[in-house]
Amino acid sequence: MMCTKCRRREAVYLRPYSGEILCRSCFKRSIEMKVRDTISRHKLLSRNDSILIAVSGGKDSLTLLKTLWRIESRIPGVSLAALTIDEGATERYRVEGLKLSRKICEDLKIPHYVVSFKEYIGYTLKELWSRTREKGLELLPCSYCGVLRRRIMNTFAKDHGFTKIATGHNLDDEVQTFIMNIMRGDYSKLFRFGASMEVISGFIPRIKPLRYIPEMEIAFYAFLEGFKLYEAECPYVRLSMRDEIRFMLNEFERKYPGVKFSIMSVMDKLSKQLSSLNKTYFKSCISCGEPTSRDKCRVCEIMDLIKT
Amino acid sequence: MMCTKCRRREAVYLRPYSGEILCRSCFKRSIEMKVRDTISRHKLLSRNDSILIAVSGGKDSLTLLKTLWRIESRIPGVSLAALTIDEGATERYRVEGLKLSRKICEDLKIPHYVVSFKEYIGYTLKELWSRTREKGLELLPCSYCGVLRRRIMNTFAKDHGFTKIATGHNLDDEVQTFIMNIMRGDYSKLFRFGASMEVISGFIPRIKPLRYIPEMEIAFYAFLEGFKLYEAECPYVRLSMRDEIRFMLNEFERKYPGVKFSIMSVMDKLSKQLSSLNKTYFKSCISCGEPTSRDKCRVCEIMDLIKT
Repeated sequence: MMCTKCRRREAVYLRPYSGEILCRSCFKRSIEMKVRDTISRHKLLSRNDSILIAVSGGKDSLTLLKTLWRIESRIPGVSLAALTIDEGATERYRVEGLKLSRKICEDLKIPHYVVSFKEYIGYTLKELWSRTREKGLELLPCSYCGVLRRRIMNTFAKDHGFTKIATGHNLDDEVQTFIMNIMRGDYSKLFRFGASMEVISGFIPRIKPLRYIPEMEIAFYAFLEGFKLYEAECPYVRLSMRDEIRFMLNEFERKYPGVKFSIMSVMDKLSKQLSSLNKTYFKSCISCGEPTSRDKCRVCEIMDLIKT
Repeated sequence: MMCTKCRRREAVYLRPYSGEILCRSCFKRSIEMKVRDTISRHKLLSRNDSILIAVSGGKDSLTLLKTLWRIESRIPGVSLAALTIDEGATERYRVEGLKLSRKICEDLKIPHYVVSFKEYIGYTLKELWSRTREKGLELLPCSYCGVLRRRIMNTFAKDHGFTKIATGHNLDDEVQTFIMNIMRGDYSKLFRFGASMEVISGFIPRIKPLRYIPEMEIAFYAFLEGFKLYEAECPYVRLSMRDEIRFMLNEFERKYPGVKFSIMSVMDKLSKQLSSLNKTYFKSCISCGEPTSRDKCRVCEIMDLIKT
């Protein structure tokens, strides 16, 4: 069967929501074009941006690294670097990711940094979880892992003069988060992260160039790029509500192709209409001085919880 | 086990999202209080309202009828009547519903009217479906059944001087519709029907007094009231995306009690913030003159489809 785009090469990928059947080369090009299109449509990059890419070593972050690296040459003055955060979840999970991240950064000649939870807050994620359970706190690791990773990324970027943080969130991640916030009744989070980046004092703007690409397509891109498959998944993922929402949305997408894009279109419209109506005002944390919408930031709150 | 509310009678109902364990009498009272509370908080009724209750004979509409009948005596000048719409889906489905509706209206001395699709548009739902399939149209019956029922209710209420239409939509119905509209990317519908009724010229205001009561509790109320169980369900329900969403939401509710209320809280906030930003402007249908947001209303569009 021939590619419906170039009509010359053999097709390898069927895109259910559009009906396209693509060859390797047209498929890869379509992903790269989508990233470029997202960046230009939402004005995610400017001349002389210095971008810190959050790289775990998984398919999303490696795809982000590779596509941004391809785009970099077209935008004058843009420079790239990668940061891997070592949560210390379990040995094997992070060791694999670190090795893969280091390898690809070496190949692409991109500076690669590593910061661990342990050196930043004194505990690994595993130790944090043990402590919360010892204290009888019903906190899933995901609830503070994300908070801490975002803090480390922001602090690191500020300290090293980066102007943007790029993360590998894909369509599935974004849509899952949206549905999860609805199910939790977390209204204020529904429009906090739209397509365009927010500029808030004290925060390095975060961009998500893969936001409109389904997870499945990123996995296939990563496979075509020959990225080594990163088999170990975060050992805590099966504990989370997100995982159930992921499964549910995949079932709906299988039956009704395009559902995830429809949800994303609602998210973008909501964020456009609501973000101006619901400004979050940030102040300085009374304990550490970092920007926060509360009196004491979540990071200090978590540290208080496990220390006392 | 004793009721956690009155501490006198034996408990029969465990409310997972609140932890209450209630006796028959406290449970029934809690449902009636919730209906009264919804009506007063959202100002759904005024003195001298003449209410047309949409009654299918199912548990929701019978519960609505009974609770409104109980409340009626407390609001001066309010009068009640019931309307059953005979879609003509299949013989058995509607015949049972009609019989039950007539019976309870007789018992409560509430006037009962019946209007059929056949007499209003010349076709039963079953005939409509046959015609759309003959014409190769991929329209599920639900897509026009609702449109037609709403039209008949509105016209009937206008013609007979009713000032409000009350429908038995419960928490589950409302939350399912919300999630369905998100999955379809149908942004404009997300905030069209909030808690308070809309006053739009040409439309009799519609109220949903059961909007904050879970389907399960209405079923239990109906059981305690001794309503005959209406076993036949609409023969088309299993064809719809709504049915899959219903199943999915029930799974989440079972695992995370309160999820449906959380979704409802998001709906209410959205509707409050967005309805003023997204006014729908209604005009008269060029074909039948009924109010519509389009040039030609959906009812005329459907009739055109099956006639031509």
